Amino acid sequence: MTDTATLLARRNRALGAGAPLFYEHPLHIVRGEGVMLYDADGRAYVDMYNNVPCVGHANPRVTEAMARQQGTLNVHSRYLHEAVVEFCERLAALHGPEIESVILSCSGTEANEIALRMARFATGKRGIICTNATYHGNSELVGSLTRINTKPAVEQSPSVRAIPFPETYRPIAAGLDEAALCEAYLAKLAAAIEDLQASGEGVAAMIVCSILANEGLPNIPGDFMARAAAMVREAGGLVIADEVQAGYARTGQWWGYQVTGFTPDIVVTGKPMGNGLPLAATAASRALVENFRARTRYFNTFASSPLQAAVGMAVLDEIEQRELRGNVATVGAALKAALAQRKGASDAIGDVRGQGLFIGVELVNPKDGSPDMELAKRVINRLKDKGFLTSNAGAFANVVKIRPPLPFSQANATDFLGAWDETIAELAA
Amino acid sequence: MTDTATLLARRNRALGAGAPLFYEHPLHIVRGEGVMLYDADGRAYVDMYNNVPCVGHANPRVTEAMARQQGTLNVHSRYLHEAVVEFCERLAALHGPEIESVILSCSGTEANEIALRMARFATGKRGIICTNATYHGNSELVGSLTRINTKPAVEQSPSVRAIPFPETYRPIAAGLDEAALCEAYLAKLAAAIEDLQASGEGVAAMIVCSILANEGLPNIPGDFMARAAAMVREAGGLVIADEVQAGYARTGQWWGYQVTGFTPDIVVTGKPMGNGLPLAATAASRALVENFRARTRYFNTFASSPLQAAVGMAVLDEIEQRELRGNVATVGAALKAALAQRKGASDAIGDVRGQGLFIGVELVNPKDGSPDMELAKRVINRLKDKGFLTSNAGAFANVVKIRPPLPFSQANATDFLGAWDETIAELAA
Repeated sequence: MTDTATLLARRNRALGAGAPLFYEHPLHIVRGEGVMLYDADGRAYVDMYNNVPCVGHANPRVTEAMARQQGTLNVHSRYLHEAVVEFCERLAALHGPEIESVILSCSGTEANEIALRMARFATGKRGIICTNATYHGNSELVGSLTRINTKPAVEQSPSVRAIPFPETYRPIAAGLDEAALCEAYLAKLAAAIEDLQASGEGVAAMIVCSILANEGLPNIPGDFMARAAAMVREAGGLVIADEVQAGYARTGQWWGYQVTGFTPDIVVTGKPMGNGLPLAATAASRALVENFRARTRYFNTFASSPLQAAVGMAVLDEIEQRELRGNVATVGAALKAALAQRKGASDAIGDVRGQGLFIGVELVNPKDGSPDMELAKRVINRLKDKGFLTSNAGAFANVVKIRPPLPFSQANATDFLGAWDETIAELAA
Repeated sequence: MTDTATLLARRNRALGAGAPLFYEHPLHIVRGEGVMLYDADGRAYVDMYNNVPCVGHANPRVTEAMARQQGTLNVHSRYLHEAVVEFCERLAALHGPEIESVILSCSGTEANEIALRMARFATGKRGIICTNATYHGNSELVGSLTRINTKPAVEQSPSVRAIPFPETYRPIAAGLDEAALCEAYLAKLAAAIEDLQASGEGVAAMIVCSILANEGLPNIPGDFMARAAAMVREAGGLVIADEVQAGYARTGQWWGYQVTGFTPDIVVTGKPMGNGLPLAATAASRALVENFRARTRYFNTFASSPLQAAVGMAVLDEIEQRELRGNVATVGAALKAALAQRKGASDAIGDVRGQGLFIGVELVNPKDGSPDMELAKRVINRLKDKGFLTSNAGAFANVVKIRPPLPFSQANATDFLGAWDETIAELAA
């Protein structure tokens, strides 16, 4: 086994220095099983970060489906294949009747590229509205939306307007009323729409993560999402729900938009779909999908393959047959409540938010309530040393992000709370 | 088993009509093994089209590596993992010493996005030069290069200049001299460079498929590629070799640029890398890669995973240990020679071109030598009926494209030549 320093030096050359790594002392992970990860020294960690292996690391059903299909047929989509059709039918059926057709791709970036271009083709407009702390992917087009502080935008596009993401924590602490707050955020959206119209770009789409994950999982004031969606449609635009993080039972429901209360025209999914196999999707009405196909003759070499279909259906089967939505709702609600109860343990714990097994704990400077990214970093490194893997996120990178594989159990949660209490006592008492 | 008409109707709804399919009567393929594919009726086909399953359909070593790694660990790249480093080291070592570092991604589109943006960051310029019959991928940025007749461009970008692709077949038939022809094509490149400089875009890069695959595998006059690369560098730009089709032993050498005689600054690979697993790479000097990483903090959820590394190395092992480059060179040269010998069988056979196991047969109207796309379509459909899968390609879609998995044997070639002779006798005698 190569030692960590040697491996890091080799990595800096082979991948180029700057390829991102987690933690002050990077982890050298060699094995996973269920919600557990193991490092090169055999040390065990409870994985409370990874949403991609949603049905658990090394999930046997997924591995078996992958091996069986790869050993039978894995080829592009210009031949007919029944499982590819069946998988797309199953995906569409997980939404309301307005979502009929699916374009598979290999990453959330590719799926968001399709969504944005689909909206532009359908509307004949170019303007895109996003939030001011978002990240939707890494291509030039999708990257032009990037506003999150850890990912610099490629370049500012004249077609993009970023509105303040809606939240209640800081504004209400500052004395604002939730109803007035909702109106204030909607006014920002109205101004963005007006500005796009005046500039000649027009409104092609608003794209949002349905639960504003990168923004830090804020509580959204009032019925902001439903009213925002209505305003965008009124202006001739489409509503794109980026469900790459929010979807696939993460919140205890299939989709984040069910939790935050709006109906999208286009739904983008990715990360958890293949339990690690590159797999993403853009779903919409048949008319939207067919218009996009006619305009682009879109073809994606690796997408809509029998491999994607077999693995994708194994993941859906796991979520459905193990009733993971129920597990997420029960364990997630209990963990969130337990963390919320612990707010009094430290004035540095500003807020506890989230839905299902996606929880954020906002850490702040007790003196003025300002975001404390450094504390968040110390907390996640200490939790790692205690055997629990989390990360920090949010508009100010000060939110401890808890997002384990979906089979995360009540016993895992109890173990974590012990480590959490120790960590807060050590670092932020 | 669902009948083909029913399956097609379901597909038109679930994927949207317009999702591309091969052949007049689409094939319903259910199984593959080596160079063979089998349809739902048990009919066998020799696969002479698919380059993605480069080491053969259902390759046991690849399947085993995939299953073992997925059953052990498949996680993102922000933890250290030795095999990921080793795979990138092996990829870089397959080029000259100037290629040091690798960014893995999930598709040729993603890898070309990285290459183009890498060149723009390094040069501070925006201008991109491509050929006038090319295709490099399906995102907004990469799709803006699309000029191939079957794939409409998303929109024409002010940063892109498309030069006529260099070829000898038609110009020399028209009486031009090869040396003069090379100069004429270089003059077109010089004009494009000058135009980009004058427009203020400047020259960031020239991107070419190293063997001009989508252009129809033309014979390239003189030392066009080496001199073109020198001119681009002289203008301050970088040279991007798109090896998605040309690379990975397809020509009998590792890289197409070895065959056509130039040295790239950035190399993009994709399709065959994972034998069907989504896997692509952008390789360059460490300085270029690190500058890109610093500017973007690039992260790709599914890329640089232990799964990509394990499968990617199994493919390299297969190519190396089964000495597939030698097989490609031997069988490919014999097949090309046999097809060239058969030119006289029909005046519709205008030209036979290519390298290794990537051969193009240009079909023309005997009266005036104009491209005959309709004949090419009839030929590939008839060959399919006889159990041999090819496709049509090229700037005029009139080139029968022969590009089988790399283990394609001399016996396969002999069988194919029998079907070829029958087909030409039936359709173009």
